[in-house]
Amino acid sequence: MAVALLLHHLLDGNQTVHFLSKSCACRRPFTLRPIRVTMSHNQSYWTSINGEIEAHLKQAIPLRPPLEVFEPMSHLVLSAPETTAPALCVAACELVGGHRDQSIATASALHLMYTASFVHEQLPLTDRPRPKSRPTIHHAYSPNIELLIPDAMVPFGFELLAKADDPTQTNSDRILRVMLEIARAMGSQGMVEGQYHELESSSQWDNAWIEHVCKKKDGGLHACAATCGAILGGGGEEEIEKLRRFGLYVGMIRGMSHGIGKKEKGLVRVVEELRNLALQELEEFEGGKLEAISSFVNA
Amino acid sequence: MAVALLLHHLLDGNQTVHFLSKSCACRRPFTLRPIRVTMSHNQSYWTSINGEIEAHLKQAIPLRPPLEVFEPMSHLVLSAPETTAPALCVAACELVGGHRDQSIATASALHLMYTASFVHEQLPLTDRPRPKSRPTIHHAYSPNIELLIPDAMVPFGFELLAKADDPTQTNSDRILRVMLEIARAMGSQGMVEGQYHELESSSQWDNAWIEHVCKKKDGGLHACAATCGAILGGGGEEEIEKLRRFGLYVGMIRGMSHGIGKKEKGLVRVVEELRNLALQELEEFEGGKLEAISSFVNA
Repeated sequence: MAVALLLHHLLDGNQTVHFLSKSCACRRPFTLRPIRVTMSHNQSYWTSINGEIEAHLKQAIPLRPPLEVFEPMSHLVLSAPETTAPALCVAACELVGGHRDQSIATASALHLMYTASFVHEQLPLTDRPRPKSRPTIHHAYSPNIELLIPDAMVPFGFELLAKADDPTQTNSDRILRVMLEIARAMGSQGMVEGQYHELESSSQWDNAWIEHVCKKKDGGLHACAATCGAILGGGGEEEIEKLRRFGLYVGMIRGMSHGIGKKEKGLVRVVEELRNLALQELEEFEGGKLEAISSFVNA
Repeated sequence: MAVALLLHHLLDGNQTVHFLSKSCACRRPFTLRPIRVTMSHNQSYWTSINGEIEAHLKQAIPLRPPLEVFEPMSHLVLSAPETTAPALCVAACELVGGHRDQSIATASALHLMYTASFVHEQLPLTDRPRPKSRPTIHHAYSPNIELLIPDAMVPFGFELLAKADDPTQTNSDRILRVMLEIARAMGSQGMVEGQYHELESSSQWDNAWIEHVCKKKDGGLHACAATCGAILGGGGEEEIEKLRRFGLYVGMIRGMSHGIGKKEKGLVRVVEELRNLALQELEEFEGGKLEAISSFVNA
């Protein structure tokens, strides 16, 4: 915890993070060294990753028959609000030494899953309370279409994953493991549990409740994304678990800063503590991608 | 076509089918022999398969936290209207020489996918036309729950599939292939396309339109189920494709007899022709399970 507090005091508020990183013990002797991380410095890295994910999705969702299904799918996928989870998947893959190509299909599938959840969350239902965090959005399609298209997006995401299996590389076991991670993150004890609590418990908006919802929704999605990237990039089990926790903290920070917690001033300290915890998980990594992935704590 | 017509004349209306089957060329020389198939004779076979699928689902969906999610999931899965697709998956696996255990998880996943589609189809939306075939059903839960729970069922189905991977049997490639089949059957060019046409085109109820919807919905689901069973049971490519077509015809028969086409007298001839086509696809199979799977044409 002393390291966490030290890291905490090194954080400043202008998108620049100075933190200490110790090298991975298995690579070279333990040392402490300062690393300077700026969001602007890494902007081209994120732009490049997001560009590749978008290109993959555009290529994967051609405007083919039935156009009544593919046109809204394409529109909804490409106009969904930004999430950092797909880019985190790619960054985690590269951090553990994998190649970007190994993770682009999974990052695209994560974007599809996230979009499907988002569209269903916005669906107008007669009995549905509107959570106070929920902005009024423009509905480009009828409720019937906005119910059906996400039902096509989720299996399509799994299709992208299954097609990413390359028999020449015998990566089937990694792909199956990634599918299991994504299925769990999106399911009954992940995203759906978070959505249930957000929608059914709108009278209990205390900070503990917000933390729980952020953990299940953005936290779970980002934990899954980082875990999948580490698995696909060939990370060791310890690296995978560190990146899972890093993703969880990053996602919770995001939920509390931009999602349901964004107007809760009482969460500022929680967010700072989560930043410390997240950066601690990266302490034993090294390499050129470390600075970039660290900047997620300010995303 | 001559064989199809011959088969057609051998069909009678009291749940008893006599049809000609030629043995698989690769097993023994081509012969034609009469086989007597009765539904009642095979009842214990179907009861046994469906019992195993239900037991697998009950074990897979324990009543654990969050109960608000798992209780409705369990209830909706176990109370969904009957579909023959999961049992067809198991029967196809056994027909090609596989063991039932190889297909129970996939059959259970198919039941989850089907239930998720069914529940979303019934969701009351403000703009939604009620297709004339759609019965008024009792809604056990609020629309919000009936939207969310299927969103958990679909990834849970993929979780069951991914967990069916047995590293000691190196069946990863079969599992990934089955996932691809299920993702496509449930997605934009399968179930969702069928649902779109059923819900958005309620003024165009001619027989060609009914056939198209039955092909995409029940047809696609049953084709997928039989294909998956054949893949998991270790069937050859030719056997897999024959069972895919058998499943397609069986599903279309079911859609026309029990689904949207059930009140259309003009479809009787189409259903009879589909029965012939289905039985033709089985001509080169043999073994103790042939009689049972043949009875699907009357299901």
